[in-house]
Amino acid sequence: MTIAANDTKSNDWTTSLLANRAVNLPPPLGPGRMGDVIPFVYGLPDEDSFPAAELAAAAAAVMKDQAAKALQYGAPTPLSEYLLGFIKKDQGLELTPQQLLITSGSSQAISLVCRLLIDPGDCIVVEAPTFLGAVRTFEGYEAEIAEAPLDADGINVAALDAKLTELKAAGKKVKFVYLIPTFQNPTGVTIDLERRKAVLEVARRHQVLILEDDAYHGLLFEGETPPWLWTLDENDIVMHCGTFSKTLAAGLRLGWIGGPPELISKMASLKDDGGTNPFAGYIAAKFAENGQLEAHTKKLIDIYRRKRDRTLAGLERYMPEGSRWTSPQGGFFIWLELPEKIDTVKMLPKAVEAGVNYLPGPACFANRSGRHTIRLAFSFVKLDQIETGLRRLGEVIQKELEA
Amino acid sequence: MTIAANDTKSNDWTTSLLANRAVNLPPPLGPGRMGDVIPFVYGLPDEDSFPAAELAAAAAAVMKDQAAKALQYGAPTPLSEYLLGFIKKDQGLELTPQQLLITSGSSQAISLVCRLLIDPGDCIVVEAPTFLGAVRTFEGYEAEIAEAPLDADGINVAALDAKLTELKAAGKKVKFVYLIPTFQNPTGVTIDLERRKAVLEVARRHQVLILEDDAYHGLLFEGETPPWLWTLDENDIVMHCGTFSKTLAAGLRLGWIGGPPELISKMASLKDDGGTNPFAGYIAAKFAENGQLEAHTKKLIDIYRRKRDRTLAGLERYMPEGSRWTSPQGGFFIWLELPEKIDTVKMLPKAVEAGVNYLPGPACFANRSGRHTIRLAFSFVKLDQIETGLRRLGEVIQKELEA
Repeated sequence: MTIAANDTKSNDWTTSLLANRAVNLPPPLGPGRMGDVIPFVYGLPDEDSFPAAELAAAAAAVMKDQAAKALQYGAPTPLSEYLLGFIKKDQGLELTPQQLLITSGSSQAISLVCRLLIDPGDCIVVEAPTFLGAVRTFEGYEAEIAEAPLDADGINVAALDAKLTELKAAGKKVKFVYLIPTFQNPTGVTIDLERRKAVLEVARRHQVLILEDDAYHGLLFEGETPPWLWTLDENDIVMHCGTFSKTLAAGLRLGWIGGPPELISKMASLKDDGGTNPFAGYIAAKFAENGQLEAHTKKLIDIYRRKRDRTLAGLERYMPEGSRWTSPQGGFFIWLELPEKIDTVKMLPKAVEAGVNYLPGPACFANRSGRHTIRLAFSFVKLDQIETGLRRLGEVIQKELEA
Repeated sequence: MTIAANDTKSNDWTTSLLANRAVNLPPPLGPGRMGDVIPFVYGLPDEDSFPAAELAAAAAAVMKDQAAKALQYGAPTPLSEYLLGFIKKDQGLELTPQQLLITSGSSQAISLVCRLLIDPGDCIVVEAPTFLGAVRTFEGYEAEIAEAPLDADGINVAALDAKLTELKAAGKKVKFVYLIPTFQNPTGVTIDLERRKAVLEVARRHQVLILEDDAYHGLLFEGETPPWLWTLDENDIVMHCGTFSKTLAAGLRLGWIGGPPELISKMASLKDDGGTNPFAGYIAAKFAENGQLEAHTKKLIDIYRRKRDRTLAGLERYMPEGSRWTSPQGGFFIWLELPEKIDTVKMLPKAVEAGVNYLPGPACFANRSGRHTIRLAFSFVKLDQIETGLRRLGEVIQKELEA
């Protein structure tokens, strides 16, 4: 690509026009180097499992019968209708269309919640550790982030309660608590039923909302999971976001936000993107018809369960004494705590050199703690590379311990 | 749909958590009643012209060869590559990939410009009249809107200069001037070359940026149009947004923003939607290959030219003495000025009753002036309904004049 003359132009005043939030923005997140490295870093879906042929068939059917709507400005109404039916079947929740908004992935849902609620300096409480993409969005709205720890059964409710009390005493305005209650990113843990009820009670008492992110819904490997916080909510305090990115395809950019109708209606007003992709939405709805999406999800469960099991076996075999890890019931992630001597940030280049990568735990804490922790995503890595990857990781760790 | 018990729940404190910008939001824009009314109100593409079969074929090809990328998180890279080539051919501009960002329609591009530049109370100068969707977005960011008038050759540059001087004297911080230089929405007028150069000089002198919106690019019925402001820019002050909504399909939600790389990179950081639809983007790029999009655009030009001509003939025949209208060289819109006695807002229900609708001019002015004006969109209405629609409109106007 030739560099044009006008690429080197400049004026010296443009930066003085930036909005406050944009003055010190970090560069956009990139995918980073891949090469021959076995990738435990990406929380991406398994790409061999995308239902490409079925989506091509759905596209052909939509272009034949529904092109005037799927190619025009508007909303992906059939997808909303599918979702209303799915939620009724799955959760026993009978929603009105006014309680649901289809979004460009749950990323846009999270951003809309911030546009609706966050003035600069407002506070959001998150689990520690949590999903770094959400925190990045929160920071883009100049929110302050506070943390409450979690354990194997999910968020520590007493700690959450204490944190909310402390923030109020400090004059902070807390707008909502962001939770990933099921197969959490990055730990894989699930909040049990009792704690779900307790979290709702704490939020109600402190008069803060909850944003429940259930990105891995349906990817349950065994047993069962409790109802959504939204399903259990008796006080209109839960906003709930979901996505088709993990069960259908991330590239369709389809997600949704549900909640009290007066909040959803205001989010619809703030949603200034000309409507969520009707083309992708009509095709997804066509695909989802007749139970095809549920059937596809069952296939995915087998794929991801096998990857989880392979990862757990590899950890058992290759991790040193003093290591601990979660054993998730579903989703994409395992959380690994190594002996305290290990600094996973400093170790990462050595791991990449040895042909394996991971997400250092500090990337998942707003305060960058957890330096001996790692998020392992088993979703994207190839099944037959998992053992090799963990053997490599084990060797790198062993060297660090001996150093 | 059953109303669930929890739809009537409520708490009395949720609204106290809304962000300042969200406290008094108007309800979302809806399509309004259609029925048997001949619709001159919608600035929508002709829906009989969507290339449905070709898009189904493109979808099949992408699902066969590019599914791992088109269905995964990421960016629609092939579409960026197509655009870089198109812009080079069309404008002689040799851009780097860092000067271009694919967005969810130009709607998202406009919103990102605001996220980058607008703090509450900042000022944006627009043409009077202008595109109401953009103004709605600006207001969502709590910008103040100032206006400069236009005439048959586009914006009045002296008035723009004076307005910028006046705003500065009043202590306002003007961030950018929003212009639709070609086939403007709502008037259809095009800024001539001399004025384009003058506008650039005024903006440079006042140290404000320009957001150039060229939504109707390529829909040129005869003659030629001047180069983009972006192409003429020698001082890195122009941001330029475009869209595939008018030439390919609005339902794909694909647009783009170009400009100085340091601004585009910051917009990419603020773009928190998980990436612009790879599925739609790869399919659009596949469709655009081999000149197919240019060929399709040529077909559209014939369709819209015929609709414009039919509309101009109907206006000639049915509008009363003292009416004036623009004669656009391209695009979707004609601007109609009626005798001052007519109030187009009050007349609208009578027109709908008579089986025709339109956009009252005041919807296109930030200050709601222009009560005797109308925007007629000839793009969406069926060709063979245009004359009937204008006859009905003429009859309603005649009655108003006689009242």
